[in-house]
Amino acid sequence: MPALASNFKTEISTLIENKDFVTLKAKLAPWLPSDVAPILSELPIEELAVLFRGCSKELSAAVFSYLEHNAKHKLLKTLTQPQAAALLNELPSDDRTTFLNLLPLDLAMQLICLLTPEERKITQDLLAYPEHSVGRMMTLDYVDVHADWTVRESLDYIRTHGYDRETLSMIYVTDEAGILLDDIRVRRFLLAEPETKVSALMDGNYATLAPTDDREKALQVFRKYDRVALPVTSPESKLIGIVTADDMLDVASEEATEDIQKLGGTEALDEPYTTIALSKMVKKRASWLVVLFLGEMLTATAMSYFEDELAKAIVLSLFIPLVISSGGNAGSQAATLVIRALALGEFRLRDWWKIMRRELAAGTALGLILGAIGFLRIAIWSQFTPIYGPHWPLVGATVGIALVGIVLWGSLMGSMLPLLLKKLGFDPATSSAPFVATLVDVTGLIIYFSVALAIML
Amino acid sequence: MPALASNFKTEISTLIENKDFVTLKAKLAPWLPSDVAPILSELPIEELAVLFRGCSKELSAAVFSYLEHNAKHKLLKTLTQPQAAALLNELPSDDRTTFLNLLPLDLAMQLICLLTPEERKITQDLLAYPEHSVGRMMTLDYVDVHADWTVRESLDYIRTHGYDRETLSMIYVTDEAGILLDDIRVRRFLLAEPETKVSALMDGNYATLAPTDDREKALQVFRKYDRVALPVTSPESKLIGIVTADDMLDVASEEATEDIQKLGGTEALDEPYTTIALSKMVKKRASWLVVLFLGEMLTATAMSYFEDELAKAIVLSLFIPLVISSGGNAGSQAATLVIRALALGEFRLRDWWKIMRRELAAGTALGLILGAIGFLRIAIWSQFTPIYGPHWPLVGATVGIALVGIVLWGSLMGSMLPLLLKKLGFDPATSSAPFVATLVDVTGLIIYFSVALAIML
Repeated sequence: MPALASNFKTEISTLIENKDFVTLKAKLAPWLPSDVAPILSELPIEELAVLFRGCSKELSAAVFSYLEHNAKHKLLKTLTQPQAAALLNELPSDDRTTFLNLLPLDLAMQLICLLTPEERKITQDLLAYPEHSVGRMMTLDYVDVHADWTVRESLDYIRTHGYDRETLSMIYVTDEAGILLDDIRVRRFLLAEPETKVSALMDGNYATLAPTDDREKALQVFRKYDRVALPVTSPESKLIGIVTADDMLDVASEEATEDIQKLGGTEALDEPYTTIALSKMVKKRASWLVVLFLGEMLTATAMSYFEDELAKAIVLSLFIPLVISSGGNAGSQAATLVIRALALGEFRLRDWWKIMRRELAAGTALGLILGAIGFLRIAIWSQFTPIYGPHWPLVGATVGIALVGIVLWGSLMGSMLPLLLKKLGFDPATSSAPFVATLVDVTGLIIYFSVALAIML
Repeated sequence: MPALASNFKTEISTLIENKDFVTLKAKLAPWLPSDVAPILSELPIEELAVLFRGCSKELSAAVFSYLEHNAKHKLLKTLTQPQAAALLNELPSDDRTTFLNLLPLDLAMQLICLLTPEERKITQDLLAYPEHSVGRMMTLDYVDVHADWTVRESLDYIRTHGYDRETLSMIYVTDEAGILLDDIRVRRFLLAEPETKVSALMDGNYATLAPTDDREKALQVFRKYDRVALPVTSPESKLIGIVTADDMLDVASEEATEDIQKLGGTEALDEPYTTIALSKMVKKRASWLVVLFLGEMLTATAMSYFEDELAKAIVLSLFIPLVISSGGNAGSQAATLVIRALALGEFRLRDWWKIMRRELAAGTALGLILGAIGFLRIAIWSQFTPIYGPHWPLVGATVGIALVGIVLWGSLMGSMLPLLLKKLGFDPATSSAPFVATLVDVTGLIIYFSVALAIML
């Protein structure tokens, strides 16, 4: 942090310790809350608790928005009920919704009751949208102007109504009924002559989100349009809120974390790995691990059908882990690639046959490569060790041919399973690497022993 | 797209077809290039090629920046050399670097030679920074003002120098030597009295990036500070460029894609799954698949040491896939969680023992759960089928105890391997689920047979 800001923080800290609220107020007065909030948010919680009692509710709200969820929670507990009420009413609606959403239900309900009827209505409306929807993330802190206003009139309006809104980068144009007509970058106003009509700045080029859109969809729209904020409209095209790009950065990271954790074969933790309670983490991991374990039990069942063959040629058992894990690896590659491509919107469900064709080709090529290596390995080893017996070419052929089939099968299963899950309305990321591997293990054993039966026995 | 923009596109399209450049120019004149660029970028390439010959180079550059890489490449080939030169010189430096970076080296060199000496120097400087560094992403299109200027002087300067810069949201304050003193949101200028000094708007609160910072680090800073742009400074604190948040959204998604693909056990594709050449994709997948295959061959070697034991108790082989895959699944869970936590900066390498302690506890708990289920499965089945023989309690105990050891071992390996890789300077995401699973398979077999030897044989 630069020296200026660091000094500022120390000075404020000293004033808080001395409870010198007069000097404190004077010190803070010249600053916009949003400019000092990031500096003040680094103060220890105890000092913040004192500060919040002495400073404006605008500043409290701005600082509060910058804190981590746990710090918010702790701080709120140090405040009296009227103080907490004032603070909560002042918070931007999107920050408030996010905060309440992470609290235990009973506490959230208690806090919602502290809100003014107007803010309570807004909050309940926002919380009524599905989790992970655009509605939950949107803020009502935007500025809208009318098309027949001049730039001067608009700027005057912004000066009186837009003070310290986080979202002054875009100005929205609406008609009397609140229908969205356009969004205009604030710099257009900055660069235009004061008497220009707003309508002359309009280009009719804007993208909108619906409040019921999933946040993953919003992410795709943001990536496409390079905007700092996007308007949210009702089915009747009324402007009802906006979503800002900095919130999307958090969404992008959360969505990726969720997908990555699911791909790793665990439920999404929804909390940082380092701070989640051990019991909670074990629960989230155990559920998937047990499901996979029960699925994998079928391998024992499948193998028991081939017990006689195994007894006749114990050498077959040596290659079981090698053969089935190759199918699992190929499958987890395919699943991972398809799941990520789906999340990025690279293709649609109805293109499934294109994916299938690709994996048919890729799976065959990969199977041939591994099959050839497998055969060679057995051929070379057999020259040095008697372990594969005089029939090593048969063993080699069995392993090689089984590998082609299993790798191809794994690639097809891995690529089609996420599509099937999506089609059925589930999250495609559920078809994690371990999940696909387990499925391929069972079918892989059947392929392996069938090839062995045909060639060796 | 709203009706207004759609009409506009159709009109432009007709004018281009009719080669009516006079009306075309008049039609485009009132608009800022950056406002119409997203609309025009949706025209077909052939029409764009005509448009680029008739419109200003500012507009060409703005439209060009909006196109996909392949469209850019195709379009450039339709232009004459002087046209291409004019276009490339006009591109924002960050967009140009990104574009050149994705081209084959010889073509990129050819295009760099078309640049003016000044722009060539800028481009070569930017390309000299390591791949995926902040230097490669930064743009020089920022506006800086001096602390002793008034708001009016600054706005005049912005009007003449800042016209159509993408990055007018933040204004930078520098001294005569170019040292960065502060960044100020443009709305502060908008809301301030014209005669206010810039120094009065300064709060000394800003975060900076170094050009050598990895883009993953930049992402963490952006997430922390909620800024639309961050300044990049030299070691002497000189302002040398800025990075914008909309580019970070792409970075966030690319970084996640890379990590996800590596976690799935394939090299990062670096191209969309649906468009990458099949041969290229097979190559990227085959390399890892072969490495995993060679590693997995050790399972055959390990098992051959236990061939006699296997022959004595063929029932042991039935549970091999079940037992080793459980270790692999536990390992891939742990690896995935730790890798993601590392990427998000949730903990540091020196905290490895904290992670180890967590996994020791989680692994033991998960192992006991699976071990108990495994024992029960064998106990129940043995009542209905003679397959496990009269010694089923021994078989059950072997499987159950081995599971505890293997799941614990998998969790420890999975969590420590990414940390070890990072410590050695490799990308932790390389320790993918399949990679960890393969390692655990080999050691898992040894644990399984050792337990069997102790209990059964």
